[in-house]
Amino acid sequence: MDNQIVKSVAVIGLGSMGMGAAKSCVRAGLDVYGIDLNPMALETLDHFGAKGVSTDAKQFAPLLDAVLLLVINAKQVTSILFDSGLAENLKPNTAVMVSATISAQDAQQIDAELKKHGLLMLDAPVSGGAVKAEAGEMTIMAAGSSAAFTKLAPVLDATAAKVYNIGEAIGLGATVKIIHQLLAGVHIAAGAEAMALAARAQIPLDVMYEVVTNAAGNSWMFENRMKHVVDGDYTPKSMVDIFVKDLNLVADTAQDFKFPLPLASTALNMFTAASNAGFGKEDDSAVIKIFDGIKLPGMEES
Amino acid sequence: MDNQIVKSVAVIGLGSMGMGAAKSCVRAGLDVYGIDLNPMALETLDHFGAKGVSTDAKQFAPLLDAVLLLVINAKQVTSILFDSGLAENLKPNTAVMVSATISAQDAQQIDAELKKHGLLMLDAPVSGGAVKAEAGEMTIMAAGSSAAFTKLAPVLDATAAKVYNIGEAIGLGATVKIIHQLLAGVHIAAGAEAMALAARAQIPLDVMYEVVTNAAGNSWMFENRMKHVVDGDYTPKSMVDIFVKDLNLVADTAQDFKFPLPLASTALNMFTAASNAGFGKEDDSAVIKIFDGIKLPGMEES
Repeated sequence: MDNQIVKSVAVIGLGSMGMGAAKSCVRAGLDVYGIDLNPMALETLDHFGAKGVSTDAKQFAPLLDAVLLLVINAKQVTSILFDSGLAENLKPNTAVMVSATISAQDAQQIDAELKKHGLLMLDAPVSGGAVKAEAGEMTIMAAGSSAAFTKLAPVLDATAAKVYNIGEAIGLGATVKIIHQLLAGVHIAAGAEAMALAARAQIPLDVMYEVVTNAAGNSWMFENRMKHVVDGDYTPKSMVDIFVKDLNLVADTAQDFKFPLPLASTALNMFTAASNAGFGKEDDSAVIKIFDGIKLPGMEES
Repeated sequence: MDNQIVKSVAVIGLGSMGMGAAKSCVRAGLDVYGIDLNPMALETLDHFGAKGVSTDAKQFAPLLDAVLLLVINAKQVTSILFDSGLAENLKPNTAVMVSATISAQDAQQIDAELKKHGLLMLDAPVSGGAVKAEAGEMTIMAAGSSAAFTKLAPVLDATAAKVYNIGEAIGLGATVKIIHQLLAGVHIAAGAEAMALAARAQIPLDVMYEVVTNAAGNSWMFENRMKHVVDGDYTPKSMVDIFVKDLNLVADTAQDFKFPLPLASTALNMFTAASNAGFGKEDDSAVIKIFDGIKLPGMEES
């Protein structure tokens, strides 16, 4: 059984979440190999105690028991695993944890490809933000075989405060994350719509924020993102274009299931309008800028 | 100055919020007169220590320093104050706190009528639910003159944990409450939409609920109302028809300000469809029943 235990893991994608996860694996005593295109990120992880860092994972393939992918989308996942030749060089039964936000269909296609190479997949999107990742306290919503869960236990233990086992079928993890993003996106857009109406009605936005965050109309996203509107600071923590992407994944999921989503489709239109108006790279709270005829903190009246 | 201090208050409308507020006023040592059409509610408050109870407020009018209205809508407020002859029998400078959820326009019309009788108005919607009301810990969002705030201070102290002074202009309190209800209504409808999609995708709803309530997609309403869906219990805490009413007030407000509200108008359509399908008197979480082709806890597949 000892050969089932993961001792070495490559963390691919050292952004805010990936870097935190990689450091958490180092702290847990795993042999960590860090992969990113950004040399600064590689240097940071190298100094933190990685066994190796590189822009290309393939060279480490024979050394790995597990791979954790924390990249942006399905295209990056398939490019790294299959186009660059990583998958064909991994040892059989290496466990591949795919933590990008992707569609269930993409998750299933990736799983089919991995199976051809004798590899295990965990469909395991994450949530929690950079601070939780750094603390090894991500929330992971995972689907896969018990073999994949067992093999990845040391990586899950090192990186997560909560691991939800959604089921065996690859795609369930992806779907739970997408439904979560439906709520997150609608809540940001609803917060923006409410604060825009408050601005129009001459309600001081700091008072409106204070009332809502102390009452039943509050949401995690309202409290976090509408603070940026009150402060007039649209420095991106997470960008408008991320929700254009994620709410399009929601729309694809609705299409696959032939299911109507009146609010999510409306929120997608709002984020798409914001991106189209030039706010795609601003903080996602900048979706409020689609509303004309109001004066927001830090802005001239439009 | 002593004649400015409120010693006696009539609480009109002894529902879940009004009864709690009335008891809180009794506990604070005020002379409380309770008014409702329901004899059971009158008996309860009588035993709790009211100075007087009745189905008609007019008989107590000369004894009152203040009136607190916790009824359903503007029609009830105007009927009680003006059609039944209460206002014309109150002493000059009696303070009238209007805590129904009503439009800004209605608040302004009520204020104009009260002024004709030499009465003070506080435009003071509340939030917090029955438990908070019982504890004397409502959230009150109030607008009015400093004379009205000063005169009502003993009542505000007795009933509220937080009092937000939105400004002098009557209507601002009503508008803040309406914007709060925009968020509350959209969040319930969004929770229903997300849980309906989860049901369609064969995600166990208790797992979906657990993931969301531990992640950034959570809202106060999701956590509170989607529990009813997980339990399959649509016993009304607050009814679908309340949000048909409140989101129609949101729509009226949007019309007054000539302001687009893409999400609130969508949520209004969802609650209206639910009411139209026969679920108006069920818990507001029953808005999920507008989605066909899913199996929910406690229900057969539709």
